[in-house]
Amino acid sequence: MRGKLYSVGIGPGDPELLTLKAVRLLKECDAVAIPQGDNGELTAKSIVAQVTDLEQKEQLLIYMPMTKDMAVMDRAHRKAADDVEALLDAGKTVVYITLGCPTVYATCIYVHKLVTADGYEAELVPGVTSICAVAARLGTSLCERSEPLIILPGSYKEVSGFLDGPGNKVLMKSASEIGRVRDELREKGLLKNAAMVERCGLPGEKVYRDLEEIDPKSSYFSVILVKEKEFDTK
Amino acid sequence: MRGKLYSVGIGPGDPELLTLKAVRLLKECDAVAIPQGDNGELTAKSIVAQVTDLEQKEQLLIYMPMTKDMAVMDRAHRKAADDVEALLDAGKTVVYITLGCPTVYATCIYVHKLVTADGYEAELVPGVTSICAVAARLGTSLCERSEPLIILPGSYKEVSGFLDGPGNKVLMKSASEIGRVRDELREKGLLKNAAMVERCGLPGEKVYRDLEEIDPKSSYFSVILVKEKEFDTK
Repeated sequence: MRGKLYSVGIGPGDPELLTLKAVRLLKECDAVAIPQGDNGELTAKSIVAQVTDLEQKEQLLIYMPMTKDMAVMDRAHRKAADDVEALLDAGKTVVYITLGCPTVYATCIYVHKLVTADGYEAELVPGVTSICAVAARLGTSLCERSEPLIILPGSYKEVSGFLDGPGNKVLMKSASEIGRVRDELREKGLLKNAAMVERCGLPGEKVYRDLEEIDPKSSYFSVILVKEKEFDTK
Repeated sequence: MRGKLYSVGIGPGDPELLTLKAVRLLKECDAVAIPQGDNGELTAKSIVAQVTDLEQKEQLLIYMPMTKDMAVMDRAHRKAADDVEALLDAGKTVVYITLGCPTVYATCIYVHKLVTADGYEAELVPGVTSICAVAARLGTSLCERSEPLIILPGSYKEVSGFLDGPGNKVLMKSASEIGRVRDELREKGLLKNAAMVERCGLPGEKVYRDLEEIDPKSSYFSVILVKEKEFDTK
């Protein structure tokens, strides 16, 4: 019988933010699919390895190039889906671990969809997002009462329009654009309403209540929260 | 010595979506603060009781009236903060459980802020949101690549404006407005891009891939997802 794929959110970094379901699936599965970025770092693996013994499991590295070239990405997704499907065909249960939640800007979703489209059984298992973890770290809410919450990839071209409108905003994955995002917040007079956490729950975590202090070469794992009202906890 | 307050997200309903941290804190704490709505239901307690023994703990019921009357709400929050602070003054560690995550439309945040403002040590512990759980249940993402994600309380007056703009939308807590929200999605031709999950992960869960089938008297715990593109999994 074919195995089943579980694409599992492992939370933002703190191994204690794994869910009971993630831990159970990791214990029960035959193989773990592990994302690997361009720099070779295995961030997701290092988190999971703190709460479960991966050495007993078959391990499949899934290489995801950091690129916006759709053809390169499509090839990487197809290769990953083929590798996962080979394990499923061998009757193995596969847990594909992903930082945060598989439903929020996760690369695993593309592979998950290919595997599903190919007729395999597959389930998404939600996790704690870095968005929630960052707000919690700052001691504030993302949204209250009738406040909208707008989550934007920092590199999204139309960020400006949203920044001028109502709601609290979260800027994700600003990466190399982070200096530009900060400058735009300054121009719009929004710096007093903004804070940032870099590598929330990971080694080297940094909290910035003043974005003037950030390093424009800041980590890929940075999340900026911009509130409609000034921060109550700053 | 004064105790510490932990406002802890317990996830959307499935007890397996509690985090390891939530379970540890529930085991270690002296007292559990439990939200109670108008109908007397103790939804959060019934979830937590499936993974940890609450009978060994002091239990504090926190009554939260379902109202938009700010004066009534403010009184309820103050009363809850006073009750929590009495436990903290007695040196007790208190875990205040909340459905989903304390950072996303949670009533516990108001009590948490009052307790913090009164000088007590307090920590927010993020959980899996119903938003992520609903997308996972539908087998789809909330946002991919450069898609914005816009989270709106369904009763928010300016929902219309957002529905006309870019991004995927999540409509939360539509409650008694759910029929009106559905009608608006129909008028805008968005029903083909929408799906809903009622009581995700709770007893009586229902998935609606066609919103024409929903009961306008649907549960308070309903989340509608409206995607920019048609659903790939419908």
